[in-house]
Amino acid sequence: MLVPILGLIGFAIAIVIYNQVKSQPVGNAKMKEISEAIYSGAMAFLAREYKVLGIFIAVVFVLIWIGLGIQTALAFVGGAGCSMLCGFIGMKAATRANVRTTEAARAQGQAAALQVSFNGGAVMGLAVASLGLVGVGIAFIQFGGDPTTVQYINGFAMGASSIALFARVGGGIYTKAADVGSDLVGKVEAGIPEDDPRNPGVIADNVGDCVGDTAGMGADIFESYVGSIIATIAIAAAASPELLAKIGSSSAASTDVIASALFLPLGLAMVGLVFSVVGIWSMKKLSGMDPAKALHYTTFVAAGLFLVAALFIVLFSSLKFGVFLAILVGTLAGIAIGQITEYYTARGPVTRIAEASKTGPATNIIHGLAVGLESTAAPILIICVAIAVANGTAGLYGIGIAAVGMLATVGVTMTVDAYGPIADNAGGISEMAGLGEDVRKITDGLDAIGNTTAAIGKGFAIGSAALTALALFSAYATTVKLETINLINPMVVIGLLVGGVLPFFIGALTMTSVGRAAGKMVDEIRRQFREIPGLLEGKEGVKPEPEKCIDISAKAALQEMVLPGVVAVVAPVLIGFILGKEALGGMLAGATVTGVLLALMMSNGGGAWDNAKKFIESGKLEGEKKGGEAHKAAVVGDTVGDPFKDTSGPSMNILIKLMSVVSLVIAPLLV
Amino acid sequence: MLVPILGLIGFAIAIVIYNQVKSQPVGNAKMKEISEAIYSGAMAFLAREYKVLGIFIAVVFVLIWIGLGIQTALAFVGGAGCSMLCGFIGMKAATRANVRTTEAARAQGQAAALQVSFNGGAVMGLAVASLGLVGVGIAFIQFGGDPTTVQYINGFAMGASSIALFARVGGGIYTKAADVGSDLVGKVEAGIPEDDPRNPGVIADNVGDCVGDTAGMGADIFESYVGSIIATIAIAAAASPELLAKIGSSSAASTDVIASALFLPLGLAMVGLVFSVVGIWSMKKLSGMDPAKALHYTTFVAAGLFLVAALFIVLFSSLKFGVFLAILVGTLAGIAIGQITEYYTARGPVTRIAEASKTGPATNIIHGLAVGLESTAAPILIICVAIAVANGTAGLYGIGIAAVGMLATVGVTMTVDAYGPIADNAGGISEMAGLGEDVRKITDGLDAIGNTTAAIGKGFAIGSAALTALALFSAYATTVKLETINLINPMVVIGLLVGGVLPFFIGALTMTSVGRAAGKMVDEIRRQFREIPGLLEGKEGVKPEPEKCIDISAKAALQEMVLPGVVAVVAPVLIGFILGKEALGGMLAGATVTGVLLALMMSNGGGAWDNAKKFIESGKLEGEKKGGEAHKAAVVGDTVGDPFKDTSGPSMNILIKLMSVVSLVIAPLLV
Repeated sequence: MLVPILGLIGFAIAIVIYNQVKSQPVGNAKMKEISEAIYSGAMAFLAREYKVLGIFIAVVFVLIWIGLGIQTALAFVGGAGCSMLCGFIGMKAATRANVRTTEAARAQGQAAALQVSFNGGAVMGLAVASLGLVGVGIAFIQFGGDPTTVQYINGFAMGASSIALFARVGGGIYTKAADVGSDLVGKVEAGIPEDDPRNPGVIADNVGDCVGDTAGMGADIFESYVGSIIATIAIAAAASPELLAKIGSSSAASTDVIASALFLPLGLAMVGLVFSVVGIWSMKKLSGMDPAKALHYTTFVAAGLFLVAALFIVLFSSLKFGVFLAILVGTLAGIAIGQITEYYTARGPVTRIAEASKTGPATNIIHGLAVGLESTAAPILIICVAIAVANGTAGLYGIGIAAVGMLATVGVTMTVDAYGPIADNAGGISEMAGLGEDVRKITDGLDAIGNTTAAIGKGFAIGSAALTALALFSAYATTVKLETINLINPMVVIGLLVGGVLPFFIGALTMTSVGRAAGKMVDEIRRQFREIPGLLEGKEGVKPEPEKCIDISAKAALQEMVLPGVVAVVAPVLIGFILGKEALGGMLAGATVTGVLLALMMSNGGGAWDNAKKFIESGKLEGEKKGGEAHKAAVVGDTVGDPFKDTSGPSMNILIKLMSVVSLVIAPLLV
Repeated sequence: MLVPILGLIGFAIAIVIYNQVKSQPVGNAKMKEISEAIYSGAMAFLAREYKVLGIFIAVVFVLIWIGLGIQTALAFVGGAGCSMLCGFIGMKAATRANVRTTEAARAQGQAAALQVSFNGGAVMGLAVASLGLVGVGIAFIQFGGDPTTVQYINGFAMGASSIALFARVGGGIYTKAADVGSDLVGKVEAGIPEDDPRNPGVIADNVGDCVGDTAGMGADIFESYVGSIIATIAIAAAASPELLAKIGSSSAASTDVIASALFLPLGLAMVGLVFSVVGIWSMKKLSGMDPAKALHYTTFVAAGLFLVAALFIVLFSSLKFGVFLAILVGTLAGIAIGQITEYYTARGPVTRIAEASKTGPATNIIHGLAVGLESTAAPILIICVAIAVANGTAGLYGIGIAAVGMLATVGVTMTVDAYGPIADNAGGISEMAGLGEDVRKITDGLDAIGNTTAAIGKGFAIGSAALTALALFSAYATTVKLETINLINPMVVIGLLVGGVLPFFIGALTMTSVGRAAGKMVDEIRRQFREIPGLLEGKEGVKPEPEKCIDISAKAALQEMVLPGVVAVVAPVLIGFILGKEALGGMLAGATVTGVLLALMMSNGGGAWDNAKKFIESGKLEGEKKGGEAHKAAVVGDTVGDPFKDTSGPSMNILIKLMSVVSLVIAPLLV
């Protein structure tokens, strides 16, 4: 009972912070008008998206009910509902916090602006962590007591995963169609600055930041968080006597070991939430210092305290010390992958791409793709080390609990993530409202840090998705009682190949969607520049028609998110029933491998292109400046990187988790 | 004994054809001068490359001798030697046939030009097939009679594979550094036509076509051919009683079944060579018709006759009819994958990319990447069907023999492949020698067909590499006597992840190499245009300095081919000895999946970009023409696609085969 109660307390704190944010001043009428346009655009999209999701949820609810009974179906709806609620609250907070950050930067300076944007992110961070606890907690109370009913909890993870895929794909298409379209016509063709109010696509672009980076990212992390907890519970529930002997302390009875193993992921999530609140609170003390450091410290405070608490929990449970090592390696792996991501998207490789821009867009793209491909190696090796240590100390249970360890302080890591798009939006609003150099400098500074935290966050999201998918995979294998998923069996090889190709296929679908929608956006913005007299010249009183751009993004997102989502849900069902449970295991393995690799390549490549462009803009590339040939080449790279890093890449995270969790849910039918 | 003798006869035919080609007229002094420059550039590179390879072969020879005995070491040298000899002969023929094709086009017209270029390719095609038979035949006579020595033959495949990787990577870097560099400065910056004699990089580009597309492709296919035969022999040699019961006809004794199963791959290769010669000969009758159709028909003639002969061989052996179905499905899969490749690189998707070029280079790249990603799906499904049928009818042996079926008529498929770069060179020579519109029209026509056959050939190379790698994988598993390679075992998952990341890593290395070398090439060509007075203006008597460009390409190729080659050889050894034979199995599976996917994505994406550019150049895109904005965008895409389709993509084929064959060779040490 403690679990959902603590979750509710966390949620209450999120509401309090939300009200604090909302009570901040909004600024002048112009700012208010712009922020209202972003707010209403975002809310309108969410309403339309949730309508589509409602139909999907209803259909799948009925199918699960028929196939697996009402309990799993209800858990599914619960997971979907919690995820949607997270997205809704996070968006509300982000679209309130953006303009207030701008105003704080104008009236009070950097520290205040940092605090407001951070608090805006904290609403999302705490919502994810606390609703996860409430949902899983209630499901655990309902079904967790009995080994025959514990499998119903898996439905909750499937609900969260399904919503995540739609939110990520839909949000990703929305934001990048707007971003790519406005950049191509505004920055490249017309030569006007980013976020210039004359550009009709700018509002859609800012809405997209909230829709994609806030709601999409939130749903993604919510899914990993919930998925890792549930996978670990599933592994513990189906644990063999050997596994129990491996993880239990020598004196404990096996029933005590099971009880401890079942409860540990929830216990870690609880202390993780508590220390996330502490980390968030510490920003009050830190906001005066260098913002980049302050943001880092909040996560380190939370992670450090969490590890100490985790050590005590393990020591006082019926589990061996080795289990703590698995938690530790998970936490460290998350941090290490984040650091590598930062290296590839902010250091040497970025300079390499910037240098290559001197010989034109083609060499910029070639080097960017090479950086993306190269950046997969180190994170994969870290994941391998984490698997080896976790498995060595605590078997398959170790892999699950390592993922939980990585994700337990999600309240604060998600906060830092969600801060980024708010700062980005704040900068956009200050540009559109014409607030001048000084304000723009503060918001630009916060935005630049937001780009780094976003890159780190993406690395973290991929790392946690990989571990979570592996944990779900182990849970699947344990649940369907497979002794082996044998790669010598050609059916498993077929599964592996089919699984391997799915991320490529979904990547193709989402890239094409963005390309197509961006093309439409380009046509529309060109039309407005051509047909609205005085718009491009900036004549007083002439306004663009942003609603049409918003509509293009929204329509494209809603139409094109359906196929990838359906493929992801249907593929494991088909393979499982046609080729059998062993081939399905092969499929999950194949999808996880190529999914993680593509996610890393796309996210890091995209981030590196983005920052190579910024590197040239800031005048750091010798002999080149903004608007020159090298810069133009770098803008091409950045534009290609946009759908890579914000649409297709992040979709991979969710794809692999969703397919694993669907397999876990249908496992009882395959036994 | 029949096997090597037939091989020698085939080789004699190749020599006869070579002399026929050489006896054709060379044309005027200018043409002779240009072709001599290409010839000497190609031979100089080959000499330097083979020196580096000599050191590598010597080192590995000693290592194998120490680890596995002198027999395997000698077989290794034999395989390496045969592969190098193929490359040498093929290059000689290609660099002789190119100028003679131009002259035939000038003096006699299209049919004669087609015949000369086709014969030039046939030298390579027959060299590959016949030297393969000679080498494997001799190795089989030496070691094939006794189950305890048959494993030594694997060394031959490893020798062929090692050379192939270096030839492909080195050749690929050479050709694309020259191609990308000359295009960027010549076509894009200076606005002069492709192959313009003023451009100092043009000779290097033409040398590169021979080095990369002829020698590289030949080594690649030679490896698949030899690898598939040897893998099938290895599977037969280690076959379990159940497998023998599955493939043997009910009345036959098990020793007869083994003997038949061991000999079948060689028998198929023999009849394949005979009908390849028939197919090549049929060109004499066909060269008057439409060249594209003529080329297709030569392969269909050979494949059709081969299948009939294969049916009789199986029926009169001690094997079941089902074995023929495996051969049939392999042959059909090869054709089907070729057709899909043609679809993605010559039809709808190409138009999509051309359309997207209207909104600039960024959307061109986004759509091209999407096409590449999408194009992986259908070939993978075909491979899955082939695996299912082959395994269903003849178990693991079926997968090996399906690969042999796909590759048996390699003599003629390789001929058609090798024809392409000759026609390409012929066009370059006619442009450089200023032979005028009419000649250029004929060579352009042959070149365009060459691009299609190259695309089909690449698809075929990937498909055969995938099946060969799976056959080698099965042979490995059988040889190390693994009952299971269990994906639930985290060590196997680690192997899978490490294997999966290797193609990405090698892809990064090769892309970076091309990007870096092309950058140097750009600087050098810019320097010559700047510092040599009158060069760019085309002043009489002013000549560029092509040797410097040739040197840049050659140096880059030799330096940068080493690391990928060493990684590919060392990785399986390290994983095998550190993580064990089961993890190594996981690694091979992971590498095969991502390797095949990346190869398909890169080859097809690159081919589609290339043809999208040509589509616009030919005026087929409404409202756009050569030199316009859409065309410029398409040139960027084509340039990005160059290393994709000719360096990194093809390297993947060999990487996966090489790692599998290294594993197979070290298998005795892992048992």
